[in-house]
Amino acid sequence: MEGTGLPLVTPFDETGEIDEPALSDLVDRVTDAGVDFVVPCGSNSEAPLLTATERRRVVEVVADRSDVPVLAGTGQPGYRETLADTEAAAAAGADAALVVTPYYFRHDQAALASYYRGLADESPIPIFLYSVPKYTETPLDPRTVEALSTHPNVGGIKDSSGNLERLQRTVSLTGDADFSVLVGSGSIYAAGLDHGADGGVLALANVVPELASEIYDRHTDGDTDGARDLNRSLVELNRAVTARYGIPGLKAAMRSRSLPAGHVRRPFQPVDDATTTELAELVRAAR
Amino acid sequence: MEGTGLPLVTPFDETGEIDEPALSDLVDRVTDAGVDFVVPCGSNSEAPLLTATERRRVVEVVADRSDVPVLAGTGQPGYRETLADTEAAAAAGADAALVVTPYYFRHDQAALASYYRGLADESPIPIFLYSVPKYTETPLDPRTVEALSTHPNVGGIKDSSGNLERLQRTVSLTGDADFSVLVGSGSIYAAGLDHGADGGVLALANVVPELASEIYDRHTDGDTDGARDLNRSLVELNRAVTARYGIPGLKAAMRSRSLPAGHVRRPFQPVDDATTTELAELVRAAR
Amino acid sequence: MEGTGLPLVTPFDETGEIDEPALSDLVDRVTDAGVDFVVPCGSNSEAPLLTATERRRVVEVVADRSDVPVLAGTGQPGYRETLADTEAAAAAGADAALVVTPYYFRHDQAALASYYRGLADESPIPIFLYSVPKYTETPLDPRTVEALSTHPNVGGIKDSSGNLERLQRTVSLTGDADFSVLVGSGSIYAAGLDHGADGGVLALANVVPELASEIYDRHTDGDTDGARDLNRSLVELNRAVTARYGIPGLKAAMRSRSLPAGHVRRPFQPVDDATTTELAELVRAAR
Amino acid sequence: MEGTGLPLVTPFDETGEIDEPALSDLVDRVTDAGVDFVVPCGSNSEAPLLTATERRRVVEVVADRSDVPVLAGTGQPGYRETLADTEAAAAAGADAALVVTPYYFRHDQAALASYYRGLADESPIPIFLYSVPKYTETPLDPRTVEALSTHPNVGGIKDSSGNLERLQRTVSLTGDADFSVLVGSGSIYAAGLDHGADGGVLALANVVPELASEIYDRHTDGDTDGARDLNRSLVELNRAVTARYGIPGLKAAMRSRSLPAGHVRRPFQPVDDATTTELAELVRAAR
Repeated sequence: MEGTGLPLVTPFDETGEIDEPALSDLVDRVTDAGVDFVVPCGSNSEAPLLTATERRRVVEVVADRSDVPVLAGTGQPGYRETLADTEAAAAAGADAALVVTPYYFRHDQAALASYYRGLADESPIPIFLYSVPKYTETPLDPRTVEALSTHPNVGGIKDSSGNLERLQRTVSLTGDADFSVLVGSGSIYAAGLDHGADGGVLALANVVPELASEIYDRHTDGDTDGARDLNRSLVELNRAVTARYGIPGLKAAMRSRSLPAGHVRRPFQPVDDATTTELAELVRAAR
Repeated sequence: MEGTGLPLVTPFDETGEIDEPALSDLVDRVTDAGVDFVVPCGSNSEAPLLTATERRRVVEVVADRSDVPVLAGTGQPGYRETLADTEAAAAAGADAALVVTPYYFRHDQAALASYYRGLADESPIPIFLYSVPKYTETPLDPRTVEALSTHPNVGGIKDSSGNLERLQRTVSLTGDADFSVLVGSGSIYAAGLDHGADGGVLALANVVPELASEIYDRHTDGDTDGARDLNRSLVELNRAVTARYGIPGLKAAMRSRSLPAGHVRRPFQPVDDATTTELAELVRAAR
Repeated sequence: MEGTGLPLVTPFDETGEIDEPALSDLVDRVTDAGVDFVVPCGSNSEAPLLTATERRRVVEVVADRSDVPVLAGTGQPGYRETLADTEAAAAAGADAALVVTPYYFRHDQAALASYYRGLADESPIPIFLYSVPKYTETPLDPRTVEALSTHPNVGGIKDSSGNLERLQRTVSLTGDADFSVLVGSGSIYAAGLDHGADGGVLALANVVPELASEIYDRHTDGDTDGARDLNRSLVELNRAVTARYGIPGLKAAMRSRSLPAGHVRRPFQPVDDATTTELAELVRAAR
Repeated sequence: MEGTGLPLVTPFDETGEIDEPALSDLVDRVTDAGVDFVVPCGSNSEAPLLTATERRRVVEVVADRSDVPVLAGTGQPGYRETLADTEAAAAAGADAALVVTPYYFRHDQAALASYYRGLADESPIPIFLYSVPKYTETPLDPRTVEALSTHPNVGGIKDSSGNLERLQRTVSLTGDADFSVLVGSGSIYAAGLDHGADGGVLALANVVPELASEIYDRHTDGDTDGARDLNRSLVELNRAVTARYGIPGLKAAMRSRSLPAGHVRRPFQPVDDATTTELAELVRAAR
């Protein structure tokens, strides 16, 4: 995977059911906007609030509709469920699997390396590592990533730590391998590309897919100043749809552009009216 | 629920399958040792590494065998799965459901209160709150607990924060309600009882069920000094089977007493030989 | 040191100068109320906001007035200043020195052990360890305390971590030594005494010295239930004058009882009127 | 201030006394290497382990010898000492004062804003804000920085949080003011410059002043790729002399190049031989 990836939200209807037509429509909208690959069942999809059956169906709907590669989130707290999810995603049409570090329990780097190595050995599709300490408290150490990067069925990493030092180390330590380093923090996408990342997977892209893609395009066209300027103009919006208001904020921002975001599932609660207005203004001001 | 509860480990065989006969045997062993209730599918059961089907089966096996009340862990990251798990546990014979604060995503106290209130409204069996910030990063605020404690279908809380100030506040703020406060930290069981807790749910009880129960019995017999002395003698062992070596250490300690603990599931790794020896010595020294 | 210690606030006048008559008056008021020893230049004195000259003068004023033992805070980020402060405190009349783990920079347990050992070797008065991770982020490990406890010039520890497991381990590991374990968290004073602590040093005692002392007295009289009941009735007040509103809240609460607390020094800001009212109500409700 | 600043270590002799000739020599060595300004009494100087008298003397020695601007660290936990230190630094020849957020006690953003505003009103030289959460736990919020940036006697900020999102926000929010944003993390110096920072103050510059300066020079010459490449080649060395081995590692790395670093003061301990060798190899490999 390279370029701009989009971690699709999952549209739910008012009863909390997955709205499949809306999801298909969302795939159309964002791929038309130029994203390079899509990521169903990532964190922003509320995947931990879905059943295994639902997750498989989400991947299927997305893979059926998408004309770009599909990197499906399949990571669960346990090895067995993760492998089962990965196999199901492959069967549903995913090109590769994005596996978050196992959560709830904390594991050391040796256990994580063993876990990923086992999955990569058994998975029918390439495994991408996914480090998101804001949810899991466990960052993947660049030395662990280095050790895994040479496995033929490990395709890359999404690093959502927001830490550019760590990203640089990961790029340096995996430099010789056929291994994609993907930036997972919308505020440092351009910086990550400047420092050798191959692309990104950005919540923000759900709201402004055309701008997220443009950061990448400017960068690859050599206009690194322009890429950074555009990225910087999106930092406040990015914070609003991630750290500040989370997935409820992300979906509200999308709705302000008439993107088919749908509702959130509980325990998430919708944002209030003042936040909806603030988000709409941030979206309007973007660019 | 009151008295000493035991958060049963789940014995796995060498292939990682649930060893049901071992689980039944474990129920016999620990109820013979005097524990007052059992908790299948709590954190120590590796429940997040089980499928929903397996969780239901674990509850069923335990409920079928146990002659003491069954408080079944049913908390998942999402509301729907938690409710489904709770209904399944009830159908499988559980007397009440222990619902961990939803994990992976972080939710504020208002969202948590709404979540628990909804579950309590819909659940066929009483709901127990479960606050375990070492896994979820989100402690339940005593004010939130106070607000929920008056719901007729909220039965109590397991507080595993290890924070005696918080426990005291919880006891004080729920004092008028028919609400059980259960200590979730083996090192402060006697102290919690001294301060008004109704019982405990202790990982340590898997290893030394007779001693965990004796802490409670001494306390209720008025020998609070003796309860504390016994508890203090178990602090190093408790740390070893929780904070230091986790569930792999817990199972190794159990095996040193020939208790049917079985293996761990991945991503957990078994402890090494030196740790096994250290744990066996701590078990031997207990009391 | 044993029994109830009082970490005296430092009264400042409106220009920020130390109000020595008020400080002397405060010593009278609190020793009349029955506290067993006083602690000038502890955290609650705003000692890090004083010059070395001022700290020496505070100790002198307190030692001149007090008819109970004086445990003077002397810990600075560096060894040299700490030793100089300790010598100055001894010359000013202190009976022992309370040395906080060195702050700003973080040091490992080996460096901390070496630091305390050196101070104990050189100090003219006994050294008390002081672990307060809410300010320093570095708790003293009970094993480090154990190693230091046998030094003839190390007199004890004030443990303000609020962690009863750690306190129990400290009591157990220093059990054979002539070493005082002092509870530094007002909410777990009675519990700490129950578990073998020799006394406490409690911010709360500035506000209700007679009640803090009564917890200890009830405990030593064998009325451990009464000690805990009294302690529990003070938990909300304790939180208000520590975690919630800090030293500005502590001083405001004291003023509501006409205790000579004086003003705070910058960067502290006084609490607002609503908080002053809330604190006064909590004080009134105490007991 | 703009360009590459060097937070000078303080050389101590074997007895722990300041080695003034070594300090003067160090100033010569690093200014010859091209750094744009020097920072005595910053964190890397072990300033919290110096007396006020010593801090003033360090500034004096540096200001007397330096032919580049001097930004002197003057921040203490309290307002009064910080102001006194700032006045002393000005008298000793400092051009501006670098004031760390007050430590030991935690203060909210409003208190911090009031603190800095007061200092800026009273200081004879410009004040630079200094946010270093790894020591103080309290990052300055970009909105706080924005509010302070328009004060005529606030000259800029050193942001050592290592967080490029925050740095970008700070640059954006202070964009219209005559206000310097200085990067405080060696691993993201080039990235910070790319995103609008005016320079940096880097521990790493003590070891390789010519390379730290070259990052800035390449950047300003338009060779931003070259700046980043050079910076990336220094990331492992930077980590070794900051996060991994701290000031003892920094001084050992300097000594491997025969730079007059001297010894550390207690509670710091020198690094062991293996670390000395590792550091020397990292230094040798740099570039």
